[in-house]
Amino acid sequence: MRSFASENISPDVVAFQFAVRGKIAIISEEIDSAIKKAKAEGKPNPYPFEKVVKCNSGNPQLLNQKPLTFIREITSMVEYPALTEHPELFHADAVARAKEIIKATGCDGTTGAYSPSKGLAYVRQTIAHFLEERDNVPMSPEDIYLTDGASIAIKIVMQLMISHPLHGIMIPNPQYPLYGACIQQLGGKTCHYNLNEDNYWLPDINDIKEQYEKYQNQGIKIKALVVINPGNPCGEVLPIDTIKEIIKFCNEKKICLMADEVYQENIWTDIPFNSFRKVLATMEPEIAHGLELISFHSISKGFYGECGKRGGMFACTNIPEFARLMMYKIISTTLCSNVVGQVVMSIICNLPKEGDPSYPLFKQERDAILGSLKRKAEYLCDIFNKCDGMSCNRAAGAMYLFPRITLPEKFIQECHERHEDPNETYCIEMLKKTGIAVVKGSGFGQRKGTYHFRIALLPPENEIEEVGKRIQVFHNSFMQQYK
Amino acid sequence: MRSFASENISPDVVAFQFAVRGKIAIISEEIDSAIKKAKAEGKPNPYPFEKVVKCNSGNPQLLNQKPLTFIREITSMVEYPALTEHPELFHADAVARAKEIIKATGCDGTTGAYSPSKGLAYVRQTIAHFLEERDNVPMSPEDIYLTDGASIAIKIVMQLMISHPLHGIMIPNPQYPLYGACIQQLGGKTCHYNLNEDNYWLPDINDIKEQYEKYQNQGIKIKALVVINPGNPCGEVLPIDTIKEIIKFCNEKKICLMADEVYQENIWTDIPFNSFRKVLATMEPEIAHGLELISFHSISKGFYGECGKRGGMFACTNIPEFARLMMYKIISTTLCSNVVGQVVMSIICNLPKEGDPSYPLFKQERDAILGSLKRKAEYLCDIFNKCDGMSCNRAAGAMYLFPRITLPEKFIQECHERHEDPNETYCIEMLKKTGIAVVKGSGFGQRKGTYHFRIALLPPENEIEEVGKRIQVFHNSFMQQYK
Repeated sequence: MRSFASENISPDVVAFQFAVRGKIAIISEEIDSAIKKAKAEGKPNPYPFEKVVKCNSGNPQLLNQKPLTFIREITSMVEYPALTEHPELFHADAVARAKEIIKATGCDGTTGAYSPSKGLAYVRQTIAHFLEERDNVPMSPEDIYLTDGASIAIKIVMQLMISHPLHGIMIPNPQYPLYGACIQQLGGKTCHYNLNEDNYWLPDINDIKEQYEKYQNQGIKIKALVVINPGNPCGEVLPIDTIKEIIKFCNEKKICLMADEVYQENIWTDIPFNSFRKVLATMEPEIAHGLELISFHSISKGFYGECGKRGGMFACTNIPEFARLMMYKIISTTLCSNVVGQVVMSIICNLPKEGDPSYPLFKQERDAILGSLKRKAEYLCDIFNKCDGMSCNRAAGAMYLFPRITLPEKFIQECHERHEDPNETYCIEMLKKTGIAVVKGSGFGQRKGTYHFRIALLPPENEIEEVGKRIQVFHNSFMQQYK
Repeated sequence: MRSFASENISPDVVAFQFAVRGKIAIISEEIDSAIKKAKAEGKPNPYPFEKVVKCNSGNPQLLNQKPLTFIREITSMVEYPALTEHPELFHADAVARAKEIIKATGCDGTTGAYSPSKGLAYVRQTIAHFLEERDNVPMSPEDIYLTDGASIAIKIVMQLMISHPLHGIMIPNPQYPLYGACIQQLGGKTCHYNLNEDNYWLPDINDIKEQYEKYQNQGIKIKALVVINPGNPCGEVLPIDTIKEIIKFCNEKKICLMADEVYQENIWTDIPFNSFRKVLATMEPEIAHGLELISFHSISKGFYGECGKRGGMFACTNIPEFARLMMYKIISTTLCSNVVGQVVMSIICNLPKEGDPSYPLFKQERDAILGSLKRKAEYLCDIFNKCDGMSCNRAAGAMYLFPRITLPEKFIQECHERHEDPNETYCIEMLKKTGIAVVKGSGFGQRKGTYHFRIALLPPENEIEEVGKRIQVFHNSFMQQYK
């Protein structure tokens, strides 16, 4: 049998699932191809829509969100420094920033040379300054590591901790499935704590404690706890008290706290974002200087949405030097993260300020994106709550809604007979009938016997009404069918 | 004990070494900082040089190699499409290509949207076309996967194969240390075959067979064999007959052949580069359609040298669909590779042709880079062979020389007494005395009792004489000291 025969593939690789880019993404591509093909051959469109609306992934620019002009003026000049000699084409502050970045890379190639493995010193200094201002807590650039997006950062950090099948990491349920996928790839144990749908998807410290005990009694050694704040897929934003409780718990158990804060700019209600770093610093010294905290950020979300650039980072608080050296070593095997992504990371941490030439346009672009996301979150939530057998918590943050659907018993039974996941079948039906791609709730984890889907709030605002209506019509007729 | 206490770090992570970015890279940064600091404080420079010459990494643009204008014109426009309305600033074919790429990404954000996980269809089609032309063998874009540089591609492929401490992968000795580092991180066994220094560092099929038997007798299940051609660190280029022997061997043992071909454009003698794909296609059908072959390429080397962009890929030949789905799944957890790197990958596979407006400048830039690399390879090799107790094979390809140094017995003994690696101490001495950073041979692996270093051929040509002389003076005085 050859090395790549199915039976020979690593079982850890075979086992894990990543629903965001799973079946629904693959079928979406197939449908788009079929429509294109039919058009090219002059045949009728086999689907009642022109193109799949990809709400399965938090990928704003794919759905026509425009990039921030300030970012792209700078990246174009950094790519081709001769353009800085044409200041008439750009805002003056963008030209100045591009020159600053070109100089800081220390070589003619700018984005063409490997940077130091942790990232360019200039970029790490800029991020450190941003975090200091945001949190009012000192931050050393030496504790910052640049990565190709936050996803790989999470994998690197977990790789240090998992070296035995009984090493576990606690993640929320529902979770962003990257977490489960990473733990399983590393051969560890995924341990859940629950987000409470009846309380705006907030976690409950007593549940966390109970779950921890339960896993410990199974012989599992918990190494870390993951918090996604604001939450993906559920949109919860943690109040300070909850943050403090989680910090205390992790400190008491001496486990690492991994804080995924990539949606920090996506806040839709009056519950503000508070970083774990900031709250940690307000606690008693023994905790503030004890808890091992790793905070993640990215250029992919917020109002910048530069997903394709793959820029991410993690910041270490109270992580011992040897562990940080080991992080460095893992990153060093891929030499460094892509420098364009690093550059954009530095830009999102140092955006135009009032009075800067770029500010008016920047403000207009930013406010339009955030305003639109907020309105879409509210609009879709209302629609979902009007659907028969559907209920939805409002999103306090992030970019998704996670409505609960009551699937008819008859449908569930039929699916089980066909060995199908009813939640998946529902979403595929929706995709084929409406052209809207969403991700099955079972891909994130959900309480047994409940069903959900995650929809990204990304279609342009002039299409959102249509998206809402199509889902409503589909869902109501689906429910009718099984009555 | 907390999660990141030294004793708690995964032993697989602690164990592996990656010399290219190890101690020598860290000391280099420290020295540069110390010189800068001394200057800033008005104190005398503590070192007899102005700046470290970083020959420890294949990072051409850091050492002032200019990026290709054609690439950067395109990437700047792709970043900021409004620039395509200023054709006076760019070559016409670059504008046309930029527009083609912007259109192909299918969204306003171009490089700002996640691409499909395997990479943009346009990019994969362009690469497939390039491989078909190069090898005269059909290639499906579906068998091509884009990655953030070739290093992570290698790790992904290995991850599918290694799931047990007795799963082994055969790699050359000396190797590029990424290979050993990946295998060890994945918890597998590094198995060596030898490159023969007495025969221009070529591998010998009898040795490969012997080593295979030896490991098999130890209970190790060999899953794959890695070939780096042209070779890093040794610069060997494989003759067709050797390629055929290795193909036959891997096919017979039913193991995967991993062909690292990132230096395919770096050829310095009359031994031409032949891809494993091309040679495989000429063999009897049972082998041509049987051998599991994965070929790696990158934008970091050749004459393009766009290391910081982190663009890489692998192409599958005869890999079953299920295994390819698992590759897709691993990549999908990080969503996709960075799109700028993908775009550049498409450009290096479709460079200006005679008659194109960009061609004259492109040809001039390319020929200058390749001509200079070739002259530097020859010049340094001559110098090394003139040094007392140093001998060096000429490089037939790639970007490095790997001279052998005969270290004095007395020095070796002193090092052992101090628990130092004599090879490392020698390189650190060289760095501190000459400002030239090279990597110890022991970081790549070498026959017991032999010592080498790897030097990248990257200092600008007007400095290469100086570099050669400094090493010569250092080495001769070092040898004198221990006589």
